Amino acid sequence: MIRHKVSSNVSQERSGYSFFVFFSECYKLSMMSTSAYHKLIERCRDIALYNSTSALLGWDQETCLPRKGVAYRAEQCAFMKGKAHYLFSASEVGAWISECEQEAEGEDSVRSANLRDWRWSYDRATKLPGELVEKSERVRSHAMSAWAKARQENNFAEFQPHLETIIDISRQKADCYGYNENPYDALLEEYERGATTSGLVHLFGDLKPQLREIGLAAARRSEAVPIDSLSADYPMDAQCAFNEKVARAFGFDFDAGRIDTAVHPFCSGLAPGDTRLTTRYDEKDFCSSLYGVLHETGHGLYEQGLPVEHRGTPAGNSVSLGIHESQSRLWENHVGRQSAFWQHWFPVAVEAFESLASRKPDDVINFTNKSRPSLIRVEADEATYDLHIILRFEIERELISGSLAVADLPEAWNAKFEDFFGIKVPSDTEGCLQDIHWSMGALGYFPTYTIGNLAAAQLFASAHDQISGLEDDLSAGNYESLLGWLRCNIHERGGQLLPAELIRVATGEDLSPSYHLQHLKDRYLSPALT
Amino acid sequence: MIRHKVSSNVSQERSGYSFFVFFSECYKLSMMSTSAYHKLIERCRDIALYNSTSALLGWDQETCLPRKGVAYRAEQCAFMKGKAHYLFSASEVGAWISECEQEAEGEDSVRSANLRDWRWSYDRATKLPGELVEKSERVRSHAMSAWAKARQENNFAEFQPHLETIIDISRQKADCYGYNENPYDALLEEYERGATTSGLVHLFGDLKPQLREIGLAAARRSEAVPIDSLSADYPMDAQCAFNEKVARAFGFDFDAGRIDTAVHPFCSGLAPGDTRLTTRYDEKDFCSSLYGVLHETGHGLYEQGLPVEHRGTPAGNSVSLGIHESQSRLWENHVGRQSAFWQHWFPVAVEAFESLASRKPDDVINFTNKSRPSLIRVEADEATYDLHIILRFEIERELISGSLAVADLPEAWNAKFEDFFGIKVPSDTEGCLQDIHWSMGALGYFPTYTIGNLAAAQLFASAHDQISGLEDDLSAGNYESLLGWLRCNIHERGGQLLPAELIRVATGEDLSPSYHLQHLKDRYLSPALT
Repeated sequence: MIRHKVSSNVSQERSGYSFFVFFSECYKLSMMSTSAYHKLIERCRDIALYNSTSALLGWDQETCLPRKGVAYRAEQCAFMKGKAHYLFSASEVGAWISECEQEAEGEDSVRSANLRDWRWSYDRATKLPGELVEKSERVRSHAMSAWAKARQENNFAEFQPHLETIIDISRQKADCYGYNENPYDALLEEYERGATTSGLVHLFGDLKPQLREIGLAAARRSEAVPIDSLSADYPMDAQCAFNEKVARAFGFDFDAGRIDTAVHPFCSGLAPGDTRLTTRYDEKDFCSSLYGVLHETGHGLYEQGLPVEHRGTPAGNSVSLGIHESQSRLWENHVGRQSAFWQHWFPVAVEAFESLASRKPDDVINFTNKSRPSLIRVEADEATYDLHIILRFEIERELISGSLAVADLPEAWNAKFEDFFGIKVPSDTEGCLQDIHWSMGALGYFPTYTIGNLAAAQLFASAHDQISGLEDDLSAGNYESLLGWLRCNIHERGGQLLPAELIRVATGEDLSPSYHLQHLKDRYLSPALT
Repeated sequence: MIRHKVSSNVSQERSGYSFFVFFSECYKLSMMSTSAYHKLIERCRDIALYNSTSALLGWDQETCLPRKGVAYRAEQCAFMKGKAHYLFSASEVGAWISECEQEAEGEDSVRSANLRDWRWSYDRATKLPGELVEKSERVRSHAMSAWAKARQENNFAEFQPHLETIIDISRQKADCYGYNENPYDALLEEYERGATTSGLVHLFGDLKPQLREIGLAAARRSEAVPIDSLSADYPMDAQCAFNEKVARAFGFDFDAGRIDTAVHPFCSGLAPGDTRLTTRYDEKDFCSSLYGVLHETGHGLYEQGLPVEHRGTPAGNSVSLGIHESQSRLWENHVGRQSAFWQHWFPVAVEAFESLASRKPDDVINFTNKSRPSLIRVEADEATYDLHIILRFEIERELISGSLAVADLPEAWNAKFEDFFGIKVPSDTEGCLQDIHWSMGALGYFPTYTIGNLAAAQLFASAHDQISGLEDDLSAGNYESLLGWLRCNIHERGGQLLPAELIRVATGEDLSPSYHLQHLKDRYLSPALT
């Protein structure tokens, strides 16, 4: 499921440090500095109250809301989001930011990070003319229902005019926001501060050819593992209990969070001390809910680890979608799909699930690391996932630049898909209509998934270098050293460094595709499947 | 659990009539009448958005919220409630109301009801000086934690100074609100519009002596039924399924509501199409969760039946706590504790619970109608419940009038309790510290419980007179005729008539204790226990 920025807009109470303490700290801090800064902090507090409440409205809608409550819920969400937007885009906020900027900043890195982010967000929030914002919202809600219908009926024509308007509005937005090189930059930045088209072209250019090779080889080697090789009865209650055991071992704090059932797995950092994960259950395949939980636990650990003393302000928020995704991918793939993981957890799983009694750990390891090309992105495995993203990145850029007309999208998609994966796309439903993102106007979102994969591999490699005995820890089901390293290098830094700088400081180099490629080669090419 | 007025501030979507349709109706209506009226309707819409969101925050806190999320949740609730209060008590609202009042009203009963209620609420909201409101909120939150501690430690002295301040503030509030005869009237009215001390003195004066007789006789006749006469294994899942079956048969719409687990059973009409009930489970006694659900279903049916075309405005809201309670008591006691109920449901219960296989319907009927005096109000049965209320009513009046000092409360409570029930109170925890109400400043709340019992009996008697074949319907588990009668006579009237008038119109006479007394005599004195 798409992660909404709003859901990570507030962070977490930790170690008994209460919200009230936090705000008195903030007030102290701000009283010592300037009145305008104080007002901005106070304004952030009110906005966080709206956003955290919106996040609860959203969580409840996905997990609990009765069918007939949906219409009014939409009103509630729009109202709360509107209030938050209004509070931040008000002219006094701009004046306070300018006032702060004119003052000497000294060495306060938190204050500079907050001001940097406020300035950027305020400009974004106020650069769009009101009519464009309104039009965009109106178009979006119609486009989302048209997309759902078009996908269900495999009828691209139904969605086409809506997507044309969305592309047009996206271009207008990019012009309003401004950009150095490429209008697509202005859209990217909404989801990943500092990312540029040229930077991604470079990263993805290195990745693409190697990913295609890895994907083909991985698929060949996985042919021996049937898709239903573990299929058996895994009762939902037993899955719940096992998943919770693993999430708790990773370090997820159940006094400050919970796991529920939803159609689309997601994590919502609702409020301090309240991070909620969801998953869905397939009673024939315990790995489906398990890896959903491991992924969302990665998100949840990030939310629970954000610096509570700055929460509600940019310095205390998660920094970007890419970094958020790096945390989920790290725990899901680098920890959870390792042999070491199953060395520790296989006996526990055998106790939980009678159906595993006759299995060996390798059966599970092979099952969870099988690879084969998939038409659908959300069903893709590690070895092929990023090709789905690169495909969308290339198409988005062409749509925005105008070199690809919306009318020609299905044909372009299908041709590219066959080129990348060697598979013919049988229908638009399984092709260019499969994702909700474009109908929501979220162009520039997809690349954050691969940024997350690259960052996950690079961070895990650094952690590996820096933590002595990490492999032993992981084989023993002890995750404290890894979580401690992530807390220190990522979580507790909140939004103080921009994503690229955060990766540089944590790993000693710029974001690079090499760690991810090496990881995929190690996993899919080096050892024979057992 | 105490019902918060806020939770019933919005009503329900029904029969596909959506929220959006409703507001366009309102706008039409208001555009035809006056601009000030239009503005008031619009303001109500915003207030309802805040209140419905507060209600979700509250529901979530009771059912889902992780422990460490509690502190921030308090901030969210206070923020949302503060916004709603501010929106309604703003000076322009007063001006709009005055403007409407100066116009000819014609025959529009909805408009007059709305104006009557807005005027009353606006005056209440603005008559208190800001300092008194602030002081009251501050005192309340301290008093609630002091009360919890005092109750736990059986230490009245811990709570005494807080209660003294609360009584003092309550008197000041009554003076600000104004009253004709008795300062207690001004407090009562917060929970039951139109109720007066003298009216209750009269009603309760008729009740008290007869209740004492009935209570004593009922207890003597119940001696033969052991308290654990049905004790056996009733798995929680089976209880859930059975309770849902009964609630559905009563008419509760599960597409517009749900049942969850909470420590304190409650019903929250969160929003249109979203009414939520809770109960708690005792796996040795299925009747505990069942009667909780039947009670809350009565509240829920009222919420689901409120007139959607007026929702968000007083005309579309539930009218009072007493009327709300009448609906829960009617379904719980008059429907659910009848022999007819078990004639239909016993075979279904036997299928649900293996432990009932060897039982007869009469075992369940006798168990659910046993009576014995209890120290604790919330554990009291029908035959003794109202005596607990009359005791509190008498004590509250003396506290407010000053004829009883707070320091003397335990002694006065214990003496009165022994007089009413013939039982010595062993501790203040089981005496004057048992209820949360006073710590919340809710003086004048308790009488609404007995108003609800009287109204339930009177309404059920009228329904019985007016619906031919009602007894056959109930014996057959068919509740449509009864629900239809309540929809028409109570639910769909929303807040258009004041409570006393509503009872008069529905039953043809003023609220009277005679129906309730007759019901108790029929149930506890006439037929021998079988």
